[in-house]
Amino acid sequence: MLKFFAQLLVGAFVLGITSIPAFAAEGMWTFDNIPVKAIKQKYGFEPTQEWIDNVRLSSVRFNDGGSGSFITPTGLVITNHHVAVGQLQKMSSEKKDYVKDGFYASSVEKEVPCKDLELNVLVDMENVTSRVQASCNGLKGGDAVKARKAEIAKIEKEGLKKTGLLSQVVSLYGGGEYWLYSYKKYQDVRLVMAPEKQAAFFGGSSDNFTYPRYDLDYAVFRVYENGKPLENKNYMRMNPEGAKNGELVFITGHPGTTLRDLTYSQVLFNRDVKYPVRLDSIDSALKALYEYSAIGPEQKRRAATNIFYLENSKKALGSEYEGLKKAEFTDILKNKEAELIKKIDADPKLKKDTGSAFEDVEKAMKLYGSRYEKIAYSYIVGYRLPKTAFSIVFYAMETVKPDGERINGYHDSQLETWKYVNFSPAPVYDDLEKAMLKCELEETLKKLGPDDPVVKIALDGKTPEARAEELISGTKLKSVEYRKQLAEGGMDAVRNSEDPLIKFALKLAPIVQSNIKWSEKNVESVLVPAKEKIAAAKFAVYGKSVYPDATFTLRLSYGEVKNYEMNGTFAPPYTTFYGLFDRWLGFGGEGDWTVPESIKKNASKINLSTPLNFVSDNDITGGNSGSPVVNAKGEVIGVVFDGNIESLPGRFVYDEKANRAVSVHAGGIIESMKNVYGAEKLVNEILGK
Amino acid sequence: MLKFFAQLLVGAFVLGITSIPAFAAEGMWTFDNIPVKAIKQKYGFEPTQEWIDNVRLSSVRFNDGGSGSFITPTGLVITNHHVAVGQLQKMSSEKKDYVKDGFYASSVEKEVPCKDLELNVLVDMENVTSRVQASCNGLKGGDAVKARKAEIAKIEKEGLKKTGLLSQVVSLYGGGEYWLYSYKKYQDVRLVMAPEKQAAFFGGSSDNFTYPRYDLDYAVFRVYENGKPLENKNYMRMNPEGAKNGELVFITGHPGTTLRDLTYSQVLFNRDVKYPVRLDSIDSALKALYEYSAIGPEQKRRAATNIFYLENSKKALGSEYEGLKKAEFTDILKNKEAELIKKIDADPKLKKDTGSAFEDVEKAMKLYGSRYEKIAYSYIVGYRLPKTAFSIVFYAMETVKPDGERINGYHDSQLETWKYVNFSPAPVYDDLEKAMLKCELEETLKKLGPDDPVVKIALDGKTPEARAEELISGTKLKSVEYRKQLAEGGMDAVRNSEDPLIKFALKLAPIVQSNIKWSEKNVESVLVPAKEKIAAAKFAVYGKSVYPDATFTLRLSYGEVKNYEMNGTFAPPYTTFYGLFDRWLGFGGEGDWTVPESIKKNASKINLSTPLNFVSDNDITGGNSGSPVVNAKGEVIGVVFDGNIESLPGRFVYDEKANRAVSVHAGGIIESMKNVYGAEKLVNEILGK
Repeated sequence: MLKFFAQLLVGAFVLGITSIPAFAAEGMWTFDNIPVKAIKQKYGFEPTQEWIDNVRLSSVRFNDGGSGSFITPTGLVITNHHVAVGQLQKMSSEKKDYVKDGFYASSVEKEVPCKDLELNVLVDMENVTSRVQASCNGLKGGDAVKARKAEIAKIEKEGLKKTGLLSQVVSLYGGGEYWLYSYKKYQDVRLVMAPEKQAAFFGGSSDNFTYPRYDLDYAVFRVYENGKPLENKNYMRMNPEGAKNGELVFITGHPGTTLRDLTYSQVLFNRDVKYPVRLDSIDSALKALYEYSAIGPEQKRRAATNIFYLENSKKALGSEYEGLKKAEFTDILKNKEAELIKKIDADPKLKKDTGSAFEDVEKAMKLYGSRYEKIAYSYIVGYRLPKTAFSIVFYAMETVKPDGERINGYHDSQLETWKYVNFSPAPVYDDLEKAMLKCELEETLKKLGPDDPVVKIALDGKTPEARAEELISGTKLKSVEYRKQLAEGGMDAVRNSEDPLIKFALKLAPIVQSNIKWSEKNVESVLVPAKEKIAAAKFAVYGKSVYPDATFTLRLSYGEVKNYEMNGTFAPPYTTFYGLFDRWLGFGGEGDWTVPESIKKNASKINLSTPLNFVSDNDITGGNSGSPVVNAKGEVIGVVFDGNIESLPGRFVYDEKANRAVSVHAGGIIESMKNVYGAEKLVNEILGK
Repeated sequence: MLKFFAQLLVGAFVLGITSIPAFAAEGMWTFDNIPVKAIKQKYGFEPTQEWIDNVRLSSVRFNDGGSGSFITPTGLVITNHHVAVGQLQKMSSEKKDYVKDGFYASSVEKEVPCKDLELNVLVDMENVTSRVQASCNGLKGGDAVKARKAEIAKIEKEGLKKTGLLSQVVSLYGGGEYWLYSYKKYQDVRLVMAPEKQAAFFGGSSDNFTYPRYDLDYAVFRVYENGKPLENKNYMRMNPEGAKNGELVFITGHPGTTLRDLTYSQVLFNRDVKYPVRLDSIDSALKALYEYSAIGPEQKRRAATNIFYLENSKKALGSEYEGLKKAEFTDILKNKEAELIKKIDADPKLKKDTGSAFEDVEKAMKLYGSRYEKIAYSYIVGYRLPKTAFSIVFYAMETVKPDGERINGYHDSQLETWKYVNFSPAPVYDDLEKAMLKCELEETLKKLGPDDPVVKIALDGKTPEARAEELISGTKLKSVEYRKQLAEGGMDAVRNSEDPLIKFALKLAPIVQSNIKWSEKNVESVLVPAKEKIAAAKFAVYGKSVYPDATFTLRLSYGEVKNYEMNGTFAPPYTTFYGLFDRWLGFGGEGDWTVPESIKKNASKINLSTPLNFVSDNDITGGNSGSPVVNAKGEVIGVVFDGNIESLPGRFVYDEKANRAVSVHAGGIIESMKNVYGAEKLVNEILGK
C-alpha cells in the first residue's frame, strides 16, 4: 500500500531539489505547472484550467497520510480502506469491530463520526518565492536558515489570520520556489461504508505492494459542515466503465516523499546507514507486536493496525534497500549526477556559484552517518503515550519561543492540528503500551550500551520490563483532560507534574534537543546551503521543465492503463473477481488469501468478469493511497491503493518499464457495493441516480 | 514447456559427470539407485521394488523428445499436447487441422495413426561398466576413445541380437558407470484425444516457462501391437483428486541434458561462446519463419510448430543465458569447483590421478571457442530436406565402416530408428523449405564471409534466394521412395545421383567431417580424458550418493507440491479454471490469452474451482515434458508440462527456493474431458469405470 507515514525523527535533512528532465509518465506535477502541452502532444487531450481546478478542488488530503476525492455534491469522499483503517480501529471496541466486519450506514443518521480525522482541500496557492528569498538576502549559513524560517512562519501566520485557512509554506525545487498553500480543513468526517479488512486487504502483507491483485481497498466517508452533510461544488463522478487499455489516466493526490534529488553521497548514506537502521528498528518493533498479538484475540485486534503499518513499511523499505544495493541502480544515480555536474561545469558562473557544494554534502553525510544510529535511538517514542509525553514537553518548551525559532511541528499555524492529534480521545491500551515501550528500551540498551546517558535516564537502573511497567502504569496521560491541563499549564505545569512519563520525557528532552542542535550545527548548516547551491544550479539548468520532489502536497501525474513485463511474461492490465476466487483456491482457501463470507455467499450474484484492480504507469508514491484515478472527462475510474514491487525503488528513480500504480477499479467498487454489501442506496447516490 | 530437443550439431562434447551431494528435492535419479532411504526419512514413505518397477514400466519415452505414461491396461498413454503437436501437425492438412481444432476419437475405430511416432519403454538395465572399462585398459587418448566406442557398439549390437530390443549403452557419472538400457519399441501409436492448441497453450510464448499457468497441455494416444490395442500389464491409474499442498510427489521421465557437471571453464565457454551463437541462429531462423508465416493462413499453419519450438528454445536458452551472466550464479559454480578441487587435493592419490585435468579442459575450451562459430555455421541443415540429404550421404559413408568407427547416429543399433525418421511420409512444403534454406544461407554468408569454402560450395556463385530455389525445386528427396533407393544403393547411388541437394550435401560433407575430425583431434581428445579424470575423481569423492547429469534416459525425481516466493509475494500451489477466465479477461480477451470457444460455451458446465495446473519442487528439465506426476500410491495426479522461469538456469544449478515443475492437474484433465470435450467414454476408460 502507499499510505504515507511521516518520519519519526525530528529534523529531516532531505530537501527536495529538481530532477533531470522527465520522460514518459514520470513526474508528480504541482498544480501551477501541469504539463498541458506534453499531455496534448502524447494523448491529444488538453486539460483546461477549469478541468484542472475541478480536479484540484475535488482532491482531498487525509492528514494522517493519504489522499481521497469528493465523488458527489453531498460530501461523499472515497479513499482506501487502508487509509481509513486507523479511524476504523479507533471507532472499534470489543463489542463492534469495524475493521474485521466492515460497515455500511444504510441511512445518513447511521454514519459514524471519526475520532480524529482531518481532511484538507487545497483551495489556494500563492507564489511567495521572492518574499522568502528576500528575507535572507545577504545572510549566510545559520543566519539565513533562521531568517528564512522566521519569514515562512510569518507568512503562514498571516495566511491563517487573513483567510482562516490552514496555511503552509511549501519549499519546492530545493528552495527554487516557495508557495503558500492554503487548505480548507474539515474535522467532522463520518464513516459511510467500508468493506471488511479481509476483502480490502485480500492477500495480506504477502500480496502487499504486488500485482496482480484482487483487493477491495476502498472506504467511503462523508464530510459534514455545521453538523450537516457538506454541500460541495467540486466533485468528480465515478464511472464504473473504467478506462480502456492504453487510455490516458490522471492521478491526483499527495505523494509523501521522494528522494530523487539526493546527491550520490546522500544515496550512499541511505544505503549504508539510514536504511539498515530503519529496517532494524522495524524488525524489533514487529517482534514485540507479534509476541503481544499472540496473547489473545483482543490483543491481536489491538496490535493489528500497527503490525500492518510496520509490515507495510518493512516491505517497502526492504525493496527500496534491495534497489539501492544493486550497482546498476546506484549507477543510474551516479551518472545522473555526473551529467548535472558536467552541465554546471560548462557554465562558468554556475560552476563558481556551485563551488564545493557536492564535496560539502559528502563530508556532512559522512559525519552524520557516524552518529546517525546514536541519534536515532535517543528518541524513545514507545507506542503512543511516551510520544504524547514528549509532545507535551516540547509544546511547553517551544510555544514560549518566537514562532520562527521553534522546531517543526510547533509553529502557530500547526498548533490546531497538534491539539487535534494530542487530545484525541482514541482508546489507549496499557498492555500494548507496555509491550512496545519495553521493546524499545531493550533495543536502546542493546544499541547504545548500559553507560549511555540516554539509557541511564531511560531505564533509571531498572530492567526494560520493570521500567515500562512503572512508566505506563503510573502515567495519567491516558486522560485527555490531563493532557489538556498540562498543555495549557505550560512549562510550570510540566515541571511540577509528578507523572512518571512526563518526568521521563522532561529528562530526555534536553538530549533529543541537543541532538537536534548538534545536527543543525554540524550537518544541517553545511547541508542546507550546499544543497541550496546544488538546487539552484539544477533549477538554472532544468527549470520548471521538471517536477519537484514529493512533499506531501497535491500533485498530478498522467499516464495510461498498461501491462508490463514480469515473471518472464506480462502482468495483465486488469484483474477480475474470477481471479480473486482463483487465488483463494490456489492457496487452498486459507490464510491471507481467504475470501470473506460476504463475497462467498454472494458469489452467484456477482458478475465475476467485472474488473477488480488495474495498473497504469502513473508516477506515484506513498501518500497517494486513496488517490482518484481520473479520465479525460474528469471522472473517477478507480482508486489508487498500491504500487507494484518494481515501483518501490521509484523513491529514488522512476522506471517506466515496470513502475505501475495499482488501483481498485470503479467497476469493482460499484459491483461490490451492489452485490456484496447491499449498498444499493449508496450506489445510487454515487452514480447520481 | 520442457520438451527436449537434441542439439543440431554432430559431436557433443559435454560429458555428464557427477554433481555435488544433492539437497532437498534436487536430483534426477536413475532407477538402479532410487534414494529410498532419503525419501523415507523425509516423507515417511518407502517405495518398494515392486512400486519402482511398475513406475518404470509404466513410463514411456517419446523418441522425438518427451515423456509420457501408460494410464490404463488398454494401451492409453498420456503426454503433453506440445509433445504430441509434431504428430498432430503431420496428420493435418488443409482440410483438417488437428492442432488448431483438437480431436477426440469417440470410438477405437476413429483413432488416428501417427506418421512417425516411436515410443520406448525401458524394460531392462544391465551394468556393463567393467566390460566397457576393460576394453580400454592400458590404452590412452584417441586409442582409448576408439576402443571404448567399439566395445559399446558391440554391446549394443549383441543386445539387439539377443533380445530384439532397442539397445543403448548409457554413460553415467562421466564414465563412472556404463549401463546397457534395453527398450521395448512401439511404432503403431494412434491419437485418441487432444484439446485445441489454444487451450493447451493458453498464454502462448509469453506465458511459456512461467507460472501461474492455466494450460490444458495434455494429449492421449493409444499404443497398438499387431494392429490391436496393446494389453499392457504395467500402468498407473489417474486420480483426479490430485495431491495436497506439501504432499510427496514423484516425477518419472526423460530429462534431456543438464550441464551441472561442467567445469568452470566450460561454463564460461557456454556463457561467452555457445549461448550467443545459438541465440543468434535462433533469432535468424525465427525471423525467416515470421516472414514466411505472414504470407497467408496456410503458411502460418505450416510454420506454426517450428515457430513454437524456436520461441520455446529462445526463451529457455535466453533465461539460462541471463542466469549465466549473473556473477552470483557463476560464483556458485566456481565455488563448487573450488570445493571439489580442495577435496581432490586433500587425497594424494586422487590429486596425482587428476593431474592437470582442470587446466587441460580450460585450454581445450579456449581453442574450441576460437573456432566454434565457424564450425557451427558449416553444417547447413535447412528445414527438413537439406538435413535429409546430409543424413543419406552420411548413411552411405558411415554404414560401410566398422560399427565402432562410425559417427553417432549411424551405429547398427540406431539404424532402424534412422530409417523411421528419414523415411517418414510426413508432408514436405517446398516454400517453407526454400524460405528456411535461404535464411540459413544468408546467415552463413554473413557469419563466414564470401570467401569461406563452405560459403563458396553452398552458394555456388548464386544469391541465397536463387540457390535455395534451385536446390529445393530440383530435388527429388520429397519422395520417400527416392530416399530409400539412395540409402539402399549406398555410396555408388549417392555419387551417381544428379539430385542437386544430394550433390550439395556430398560436397559439404567432407567439410563437416573434417570439422568433426578437427574437433576430435584437438578438443575431444583432450577433453574426454581430462573430463574422465575429473569425473573419476568426483565419483571417488561423492560416489552414487549423487545423481548423474541428465542423458535423456529414465529418471525419477521426488519432491512436494509447494508454493514459492515470486514477484514480492508467493505463487500459489494450484491454479483453477477461475484463473483461466481472469487472465483471459485481464488482457481484454485477446491475443495469446484467448479462451477457446469450447471452454467459453461450456463455462456454465465446468466446475471452475477445479484445479487446473500446480507446482512442485521436483528437479526436472527439458525432456520431462509429458512426465507423469505420481503420488505414493503410484497414481498419476498430473502431467508435467513446464518449469517456471526461475527453474531454467537449473540446467546448471538446481535452486530449491524457486525451482518448480509446472504440471497439468489430473482433476483439470478429467474435468475438461468431461465438461469441455464431451469425452465421457474416455474418462470412464481412464478411471477404469
